[in-house]
Amino acid sequence: MIGLGTMGRNLLLNLADHDFAVAGYDKDASKVQLLAEEGEGLPVQGFSTLPEFIQSLATPRSIMMLVPAGKIVDSVIEELRPLLSQGDIIIDGGNSHFTDTERRDKALEAEGLHFFGMGISGGEEGARFGPSMMPGGDKQAYETMRPMLEAVAAKVDGAPCVTYIGPGAAGHFVKMVHNGIEYGLMQLIAETYEVLKKGLKLDNEAIGQVFARWNEGRLQSFLIDITKDIFQYIAPDTDHLLLDDIKDEARSKGTGKWTSQIAMDLTAPIPTIDTAVSMRDASRFKALREQLAGLYSQNDEAALNVNQDEFLASLEQAFYFSMMISYAQGMHMLAKASEEYGYELQLAEIAKIWRGGCIIRSSFLNDIFNAYQSTPDLAHLLLDQQVQRLVQEVVPGARTVVSSCVAAGIAVPGYASALSYFDIFRSARMPSNLIQAQRDYFGAHTYELIGHEGVFHTQWTPKHEDAENKEDAQVEEGTREEPVTPNK
Amino acid sequence: MIGLGTMGRNLLLNLADHDFAVAGYDKDASKVQLLAEEGEGLPVQGFSTLPEFIQSLATPRSIMMLVPAGKIVDSVIEELRPLLSQGDIIIDGGNSHFTDTERRDKALEAEGLHFFGMGISGGEEGARFGPSMMPGGDKQAYETMRPMLEAVAAKVDGAPCVTYIGPGAAGHFVKMVHNGIEYGLMQLIAETYEVLKKGLKLDNEAIGQVFARWNEGRLQSFLIDITKDIFQYIAPDTDHLLLDDIKDEARSKGTGKWTSQIAMDLTAPIPTIDTAVSMRDASRFKALREQLAGLYSQNDEAALNVNQDEFLASLEQAFYFSMMISYAQGMHMLAKASEEYGYELQLAEIAKIWRGGCIIRSSFLNDIFNAYQSTPDLAHLLLDQQVQRLVQEVVPGARTVVSSCVAAGIAVPGYASALSYFDIFRSARMPSNLIQAQRDYFGAHTYELIGHEGVFHTQWTPKHEDAENKEDAQVEEGTREEPVTPNK
Repeated sequence: MIGLGTMGRNLLLNLADHDFAVAGYDKDASKVQLLAEEGEGLPVQGFSTLPEFIQSLATPRSIMMLVPAGKIVDSVIEELRPLLSQGDIIIDGGNSHFTDTERRDKALEAEGLHFFGMGISGGEEGARFGPSMMPGGDKQAYETMRPMLEAVAAKVDGAPCVTYIGPGAAGHFVKMVHNGIEYGLMQLIAETYEVLKKGLKLDNEAIGQVFARWNEGRLQSFLIDITKDIFQYIAPDTDHLLLDDIKDEARSKGTGKWTSQIAMDLTAPIPTIDTAVSMRDASRFKALREQLAGLYSQNDEAALNVNQDEFLASLEQAFYFSMMISYAQGMHMLAKASEEYGYELQLAEIAKIWRGGCIIRSSFLNDIFNAYQSTPDLAHLLLDQQVQRLVQEVVPGARTVVSSCVAAGIAVPGYASALSYFDIFRSARMPSNLIQAQRDYFGAHTYELIGHEGVFHTQWTPKHEDAENKEDAQVEEGTREEPVTPNK
Repeated sequence: MIGLGTMGRNLLLNLADHDFAVAGYDKDASKVQLLAEEGEGLPVQGFSTLPEFIQSLATPRSIMMLVPAGKIVDSVIEELRPLLSQGDIIIDGGNSHFTDTERRDKALEAEGLHFFGMGISGGEEGARFGPSMMPGGDKQAYETMRPMLEAVAAKVDGAPCVTYIGPGAAGHFVKMVHNGIEYGLMQLIAETYEVLKKGLKLDNEAIGQVFARWNEGRLQSFLIDITKDIFQYIAPDTDHLLLDDIKDEARSKGTGKWTSQIAMDLTAPIPTIDTAVSMRDASRFKALREQLAGLYSQNDEAALNVNQDEFLASLEQAFYFSMMISYAQGMHMLAKASEEYGYELQLAEIAKIWRGGCIIRSSFLNDIFNAYQSTPDLAHLLLDQQVQRLVQEVVPGARTVVSSCVAAGIAVPGYASALSYFDIFRSARMPSNLIQAQRDYFGAHTYELIGHEGVFHTQWTPKHEDAENKEDAQVEEGTREEPVTPNK
């Protein structure tokens, strides 16, 4: 293990717990010292010089890095290369952008080294006691690492939460989309907090109880579980929640943003994840929001005029609905990426290893697993029969919550985008024909016709010179032209 | 002019109309021939070899390219370089990505050549009779081109729709955001069509009348104007609109996508533009949408149960509201980019040159111009007093339309996102404190406290080993730690 931060040390200790003799390296001797203390009695060695560390390993070596994504990964690889032998494996366990992983994989493969981009989810606790891991790279080399990874991974019903994801950067790609879904779910939980607080005027204790109750039912998930805990955590030496003292400015490390940006390149729509990204950004404009709140307070949110129990039941439905849609968007993006990049992703396997260890684990992942298990080439999660049954049941709640909140001025951008996504994808006909007509009108970008091959261009109005006679000339002058070559 | 497609020829003819003696070059002799025919009697020459073309120009030369964005721009520059002299100006009038323009500008500046990235909007008609142009590059070199550009630009109250935008890639950046706003407005118009058709069950003639009426009032704009025309265009040899025959699959050339992707890098939220991008992508999944429509038809949209005249009044308000928000998002992104990249953008000037010639011209651009004219460093368009008055007046209509459509199952993702954006930005306090608490809980990403400097980390639950005693131990074990260095 290169990089002995908390994550790195915890993963090493986890391996050592499972009787693998392991070694760690960090330039920072204090971290090597920490490892020694935490690993007392376990088969774990620490080094603060790289050659010593490398020499301590049996060949073929499996070397994992847990260092910050970006240039540091490249510089560690540069340091490593001269010290390694053919067949050694380098594993980047950080959140590298998958295009970087692609590049590194190609460069190292040319030198006879195996490179793995491996997404690891579960945070510090996960690393220590069982994360979910998404390794991508050479399939044969995976067999070398497999026993170790399966031993330390989280287990669900005995099955380890790790599997070979695919070639090249497939592992980092899947981890990126995992994080995108995580952004979506966190945004939905934050909006739920907003609705309970500003809409139903519940106090923190009552809000915490809602999350605790949800976590006992079909919404059971890691993120709701920790939310319930957060609503119990009193700020030291006070009588109120620590939560109330925390600034409402959300940070991010970029994986959600990458998911949205890459989805746009793939033309895979994931609007709920996009919304989560833009709402984190919006939160950073605190001073501006305070100014605008001053100006627009007469439109300030009113408490919802609803029956509380009925509305809470609708809210549970709305959350379930939007949560399903968030996963569906992520899975759809994975399917599109798999096609585009030749990853041959097994979506059932991915859902399976997400059921434990990772941040987005939830009982709904069982339904996702079942859907792709029974139909491996399912084009969209919403096509699954069981999911359809669930969605049909909860969509009325989603409509109630979004329409009430919109009317009352309570922002529920994530919920609203999930419902829009659903309504769009169940539209056999969208109004996009008008967009194509406009594009052809002003830019001669051409359009397609229902039931005809090719693309067409129309002169929608008489030429400028005849503008005076426009009203009369319009219909007569316009002609549908023959198919033309599309402008690229 | 290099590249004699319709846009290139039209711009040349426009220059020649204004008594500038101009020359055009295209490898394709048939286009040179077309130029000769169209330019008969005008001071315009055509060439099909580059050296001849270059020799025909007076120095310092002003050479504009109108060729497809991407590698072709680079290869044309490579061909040009050996033929040019110090002080010559190359203008890329296409929709190049601003990062490419940045790179080209630096490379050419080092050789003593001036490079301009110039966005041109207005389509073929605009090029011929007056476009809006957004040139970015060396300020002094701009003076050479200025008389020509001002002569051919569209005019509003006598003022030409062209101005020096800023250094480097500023011109292409501003044009990109212009196109992002265009995506937003086109999405809103398409949703309006959807609401009128599926919600109010209006026929095409009645829908066309709504757009025609809107175009007479405060919604007057190029895009609504052409929409009105599209609703009058009968498919040749039929008795129905051509619009009805056009496939509902929208294409795009990437500038909207770039706007969203770059906004995410800038952490400038533009959710309505993001939505427009993802809805174009969604339209491409026609087969999937048809399948899903089959499964989810029992949730199919119902006609809206509303008073038609009242609802139409609300819809006009909703459109006005969402249109203002689309512009506001774009302007906010420009302000953020100007800070980040040192463009020193004059937002009033930009609004001013968008009032004529370009695709997003509208009477509301006068209000935008006035807002930034009176307060050049206005942090957000919604802070302007006149805009505030307008927004306050129309927000009720937006709430009515979005909540009714959401309840009825009619997708209005753009309208909904505009309203969410507004409700978020007028929230002095967002629920993002919960997101920060969650991030610190599972990833030790730290959080900030209201009224305290620094970042903090909390052990939100007892360590795993004590999980059995979790309920009791929680509060006592948790301690707020001292400020820590944020994880980067």
